[in-house]
Amino acid sequence: MRPSFASRRDDVMQSYIMSLIEVARRPGMISFATGLPDRRLFDPAGIEAAAEKVLESGEAADALQYGATAGYMPLREKIADRCNRVMGMSVTAEDVFITNGSQECFDHLGKLFLDRGDGIAVENPGYLGALQSFSVYAPEFMPVDMEQGGPDMSQLETVFAKAPKLFYCIPNHQNPSGTSYSEDARRAVAELADRGSTLVVEDDAYGELGYHGRVGRTIASMTGNAVLTGSVSKIISPGMRVGWMVVPEWMREAVSTSLEAACLHAGSFVQRVLDAFLEDHDLDAYLRPIRAEYARKCRLFTDLLADGMPDTMSWTVPDGGMFVLLRSPEGTDADPVFRTCMERGLVVMPGKPFHIRGGANTVRLNFATASDEEIEKGMGILCKVCREIF
Amino acid sequence: MRPSFASRRDDVMQSYIMSLIEVARRPGMISFATGLPDRRLFDPAGIEAAAEKVLESGEAADALQYGATAGYMPLREKIADRCNRVMGMSVTAEDVFITNGSQECFDHLGKLFLDRGDGIAVENPGYLGALQSFSVYAPEFMPVDMEQGGPDMSQLETVFAKAPKLFYCIPNHQNPSGTSYSEDARRAVAELADRGSTLVVEDDAYGELGYHGRVGRTIASMTGNAVLTGSVSKIISPGMRVGWMVVPEWMREAVSTSLEAACLHAGSFVQRVLDAFLEDHDLDAYLRPIRAEYARKCRLFTDLLADGMPDTMSWTVPDGGMFVLLRSPEGTDADPVFRTCMERGLVVMPGKPFHIRGGANTVRLNFATASDEEIEKGMGILCKVCREIF
Repeated sequence: MRPSFASRRDDVMQSYIMSLIEVARRPGMISFATGLPDRRLFDPAGIEAAAEKVLESGEAADALQYGATAGYMPLREKIADRCNRVMGMSVTAEDVFITNGSQECFDHLGKLFLDRGDGIAVENPGYLGALQSFSVYAPEFMPVDMEQGGPDMSQLETVFAKAPKLFYCIPNHQNPSGTSYSEDARRAVAELADRGSTLVVEDDAYGELGYHGRVGRTIASMTGNAVLTGSVSKIISPGMRVGWMVVPEWMREAVSTSLEAACLHAGSFVQRVLDAFLEDHDLDAYLRPIRAEYARKCRLFTDLLADGMPDTMSWTVPDGGMFVLLRSPEGTDADPVFRTCMERGLVVMPGKPFHIRGGANTVRLNFATASDEEIEKGMGILCKVCREIF
Repeated sequence: MRPSFASRRDDVMQSYIMSLIEVARRPGMISFATGLPDRRLFDPAGIEAAAEKVLESGEAADALQYGATAGYMPLREKIADRCNRVMGMSVTAEDVFITNGSQECFDHLGKLFLDRGDGIAVENPGYLGALQSFSVYAPEFMPVDMEQGGPDMSQLETVFAKAPKLFYCIPNHQNPSGTSYSEDARRAVAELADRGSTLVVEDDAYGELGYHGRVGRTIASMTGNAVLTGSVSKIISPGMRVGWMVVPEWMREAVSTSLEAACLHAGSFVQRVLDAFLEDHDLDAYLRPIRAEYARKCRLFTDLLADGMPDTMSWTVPDGGMFVLLRSPEGTDADPVFRTCMERGLVVMPGKPFHIRGGANTVRLNFATASDEEIEKGMGILCKVCREIF
């Protein structure tokens, strides 16, 4: 006889993300579906040089041994330094905890704060992977509609008045919409957090991918009631799985215990390889061509949308990140777009799963993964399908 | 104002492990305290060659890109193959899920199965890190006393009659006691699992460290109601954080969702480096000198115990792994041993935190981490302290 699963298992959102990654890998398939960065921008030789440096150093055995729960101190220092230098924050290395990718932060924050039925305010639409991660703890999701320039402020105030435990947001180049918060929106969120007891979980996964640099100050620089999560997944390598969270001092002990209980610590080896890589590269100089390349692909992609889409369709035009959110007319269902494109060799991502309410008329498009040729070919398929349906 | 933590936070065990790792790193400190393998047995050059191979191959970008939730297929195949070849199991690569170290498995299994108050049978004493990991989900711990050759069978039957969700055990060279289950004990556990609805979580962290090879068949080879967890932490590198769980088919989907929600997937890069390392090494040949070296250190360590300890002390003599459990006379408290040794430059690990009940008269000793010279010096301190106190 099998043991029964815990009740929380009934609450876990199923997700398309990883299954779509596997579909998208089928030979000949073009993918606008996932959140994969452009593999042509990886630097295997740079990572190899960093790995050699680590494994030929006097500290090679330390890189292969168990490490400290919170992470490798020189890496924590570099992250704290960047938070202070380019994000307007004022933190120390002790506030920085390294994780196995920033996705892991959401699991820890859910585990630390969410009892069944506790409120968590979320962007609508919001990042599906984080919603799924929080859903394990069976909270009440409180959606706040996203508009140009950030969340709907009156909805946000109404929701914060209910004192949710957390507000999860991506103020820079949001996944899935590509939009960023205005300075006013950032300040308003910070003020609401200061007034209430809601912890802002500020996901900065795309913050370093602003095409003209960072688009605004972090909310975490404006309030003490915030955790900033970051990652090298979109700029250096997602396969290394190195992320982090920068937490207020009162959370340190709880985060440390949570990390230890769940995984002891993030990988010593990859942390040191990443640290050596960052030693050898000026991050701003390293980011310049990457930002330029994504900006170029975004222009190519949105130009093709403008040329090929029927007038009934609309879309966001991001100033950073990897995503465009496509909308069919209000009241229509975009699901046939997803299904028809798949039949013709293009995977796109339905926008509905990113929504707590509404969103049936949306499709998330990633323009980062595909090559120019694939973008042109895929966009041919997509625009034709949309012209046929809408 | 701060948000309040979730109620489960009150149930999380605090742990000594990671804090002791940090204490043990202080210069001049000798450590018998942690579970660190011998760093002299790491193979940085072999790992470097593997990393080069991966990063100079045509799949370099794949190693740096997002990967599949369940892990890198060639590595899963190697693990399944070893399970079948040397552990008497009959599994496929699809049953194998790669994790960020095997510690992470306990978090997933707790999350998947344990509602507040659900029963989990555990060895008494048992591995503290796993107890801590499960404690996050506020279960009722049901201790089963460990004896020579495995758990007390009448206690185990009584506990299984209460239908705990899980039974967590380390049948090979247990942490903290160093003892292994007899063939009869393995079979009895498997029969109890078959009869009831309790899932056996068989932690095989030390299974490959039997001084004369593996000491017995896995319980997972005898019942379908078992998950086997494994890791390269004790044999290749804990800093790579590569572990796995081998699960029954009915659990696959739930495990996959849980992994995706918590961390998307374990690191592509380290998985491929490890896979390349295993391609280049015959694991049995690789393990031979490592097993021999731990056997030698164990002999050195237990000979020194036999020479230096007062008659009132007793200890286990393991046939594999890294640990000896030292006992002061029944009814006494061994805590002064811990504190006095610390003052004199030796860190040992109190045995009590590994116990759900009793255990105040125990001390866990790791003979793997220290050099011969440190073992001799540390054992001088330890034996003298014990002679003074008991």
